[in-house]
Amino acid sequence: MRVLWIGTGVMGAPMAKHLFDAGYEVCAFNRTPEKAEALEPDIRSCKSIASCIKDVDIVFTIVGFPNDVKEVYDEILEHAKPRTILVDMTTSSPTLAKEIYKKAQAKNLDFLDAPVTGGDLGAINGTLSIMVGGDFHIYEKVLPLFQFMGKTITFMGKPGSGMYAKLVNQTVIAGNIMGIAEGLVLAKSKKLDLDSMLNVITGGSASSWQAQNNGRKMIDQDYRPGFFVKHFLKDLKLAMEEKEDLDLEVLEIATKAYQKLSDKKFSEEGTQAIIEYYLQKMM
Amino acid sequence: MRVLWIGTGVMGAPMAKHLFDAGYEVCAFNRTPEKAEALEPDIRSCKSIASCIKDVDIVFTIVGFPNDVKEVYDEILEHAKPRTILVDMTTSSPTLAKEIYKKAQAKNLDFLDAPVTGGDLGAINGTLSIMVGGDFHIYEKVLPLFQFMGKTITFMGKPGSGMYAKLVNQTVIAGNIMGIAEGLVLAKSKKLDLDSMLNVITGGSASSWQAQNNGRKMIDQDYRPGFFVKHFLKDLKLAMEEKEDLDLEVLEIATKAYQKLSDKKFSEEGTQAIIEYYLQKMM
Repeated sequence: MRVLWIGTGVMGAPMAKHLFDAGYEVCAFNRTPEKAEALEPDIRSCKSIASCIKDVDIVFTIVGFPNDVKEVYDEILEHAKPRTILVDMTTSSPTLAKEIYKKAQAKNLDFLDAPVTGGDLGAINGTLSIMVGGDFHIYEKVLPLFQFMGKTITFMGKPGSGMYAKLVNQTVIAGNIMGIAEGLVLAKSKKLDLDSMLNVITGGSASSWQAQNNGRKMIDQDYRPGFFVKHFLKDLKLAMEEKEDLDLEVLEIATKAYQKLSDKKFSEEGTQAIIEYYLQKMM
Repeated sequence: MRVLWIGTGVMGAPMAKHLFDAGYEVCAFNRTPEKAEALEPDIRSCKSIASCIKDVDIVFTIVGFPNDVKEVYDEILEHAKPRTILVDMTTSSPTLAKEIYKKAQAKNLDFLDAPVTGGDLGAINGTLSIMVGGDFHIYEKVLPLFQFMGKTITFMGKPGSGMYAKLVNQTVIAGNIMGIAEGLVLAKSKKLDLDSMLNVITGGSASSWQAQNNGRKMIDQDYRPGFFVKHFLKDLKLAMEEKEDLDLEVLEIATKAYQKLSDKKFSEEGTQAIIEYYLQKMM
């Protein structure tokens, strides 16, 4: 299979590299050409999507926001040859994913939505978790390639399901990280030793990946990003769009809190900066 | 050290038993005499607190609610001989713990607040996490006894700090468990396969002790209690009382949600029953 990789940022670049290392012929496109050129000579850079897409069997996309996905798929759907497999790995709108799937079907193209979790380290180490929606027989064809990028690959069902699964995952994280922040702020207000408190939290039934990986950073007010506030806020807003009439109160509060945090110029910080939202309210 | 153990319920009984097994002389009091008598002949049952307390060096209490703590300590403080060490292991009010500490000091008695996490299994297996507030030199004296009951013993600082730490722990759990419930309800509304979804959640950065231990039960609507709704609600209300002017929005929502769940006669179910709060809103 010949691969076109679109979007070579902190996630896309190492993911494309894994496919090259596995022996696939890979070319890459990025709106900022230097980012694709940086992968040469292993991965050939494309001047445009149109100039490369007819030479490949499969296209992976991992770009920023749903609008970027929309834009890039307008071009992909116009130029791809029939039976090209298209895989969007951006965390994007499930509704948009279903639309693209339908448009792709109409042009004899196949489409999977396959967002990931695990961050830049997961991308670099090939240990991402990948959630896939679409047709199962297409999933089976792409699975060998997914396995070079991720450790846990889960088929979630019909088109859009991969995106839904990702938004569910982020909804769970939202409650989790808000709970940790509220707990630590309460501990701080009572002048508890925060190191001891974190040991208690991570030592029992309050423990979580977030507490283990972001708890110490919250205490130290170390906001260097593992996962950006701006991306998490995007995910939470997508979940809010998709929840319809469900009354998900914690998700709603988390979305508002991350919006305020973003408004206060924390959008380029890591998600653990949510503690700042509470600390600033304390003062 | 001779021990009086007050409160021999699902938690207290196995905890007292560990001290007996370790070689301590233990007698026990319970308001329902049969519950203390059930521990004989290993542990002698007391007809009243007053009739036993003068024979012991240390008193442990683990009863139901702050009012029970207040009542039992009125009697303890009246009858204990000077330098008796008193240890409340109930999850109770930090403010009350501080009051009891002061009253105890005035009578030349020592007091620690030392609530636990880890549930009935932790009590049975001697693997509880114990958070201790009070005077450090008294903590040092009691530590060998704590070590027969728990695996992680943490000194949190001045009187009341053990209780505060427990409430912080429960605040973290509140966000965590609400997030899991909201995520699963969103997944269900989108008709995702919930088993696959739980695998995704527990396989990455959304994972937690709660997801691992309560996620499956939520999906199966299996509400058999590991930790009772009524006890969790008590803890959340205590945290709300103690938060003062902190704006802990998720804690507040969780407290209201568990109150409603309790009002709907789920108070004797396990905390995972919170999924029912959301499912009933869906219908």
